[in-house]
Amino acid sequence: MRRRSLSALVVAGLVVSAFGQKSEVPKGLDKFNQKFTAAVLHMDNAEVMSLWAEDGVMLLPGMAPISGKANIAKWLDGVTSRMPGYRVIRQEDLFHAIAVSGDWASEWATTLQVTQPPGGKPAIESHGKMLLVLHREKDGTWRIRAEMWNGSPAS
Amino acid sequence: MRRRSLSALVVAGLVVSAFGQKSEVPKGLDKFNQKFTAAVLHMDNAEVMSLWAEDGVMLLPGMAPISGKANIAKWLDGVTSRMPGYRVIRQEDLFHAIAVSGDWASEWATTLQVTQPPGGKPAIESHGKMLLVLHREKDGTWRIRAEMWNGSPAS
Repeated sequence: MRRRSLSALVVAGLVVSAFGQKSEVPKGLDKFNQKFTAAVLHMDNAEVMSLWAEDGVMLLPGMAPISGKANIAKWLDGVTSRMPGYRVIRQEDLFHAIAVSGDWASEWATTLQVTQPPGGKPAIESHGKMLLVLHREKDGTWRIRAEMWNGSPAS
Repeated sequence: MRRRSLSALVVAGLVVSAFGQKSEVPKGLDKFNQKFTAAVLHMDNAEVMSLWAEDGVMLLPGMAPISGKANIAKWLDGVTSRMPGYRVIRQEDLFHAIAVSGDWASEWATTLQVTQPPGGKPAIESHGKMLLVLHREKDGTWRIRAEMWNGSPAS
């Protein structure tokens, strides 16, 4: 329940720093964060990719770095196509330590994803952490330059 | 061999971007990167911790986030004390996509660490990736605000 109440704060445009202070999420980043979580929840790969910069890099466990938006999109479509019938039924990203300097920003998050396999199999819970480096592009939109993820204990 | 030649570039103060362009490493960050790699190679925990900001966060696989310099130092000393006789005999961090905006910076790296256990056991190779968020503190020194790591294939 604690996790849920903290997530609600983020939805309301607040962020909890490493030491628990609450502060406003900078405008634009709040929108980015909400779009990010919603796009993953809805498995909307086109929407996810709209959040990436052309020269972004994806850094995932057990894999070589994936550099460039086109390569990341190809990898993401591959993941989806290998999991027919799977649905993300819950996605919670609790963002921390949002820092903005000019057109660059960074933030990290604790992540919880619950996936429902087809055929009535038990849902899969995945707990983790994410670190993002963002850049405000020429159109004023924040996009991902670097995303890294790793797993966390379930507790 | 290719990895080695790229690492030599970094030592010479150059960095290879995601798309292979070479550019100068911003002054101060070059020094940070060299100190970082040397401190890990020498297992010099005090030197490693001198590179951390007070409110930094360490994001490691399979673990909850470790927030705050004191907690990170405690964790690091615990790692060392649980591995008596182990030595890091090779540490290579190849930094990419260094971005500086005001007093904030970010960079990611491919990492290779070779550790020698005691008693003539075979050396352990650990390949991975790292994402760093850095902040230039009041004394003008770049320090770590966020560090995340995950594993990569050996190839």
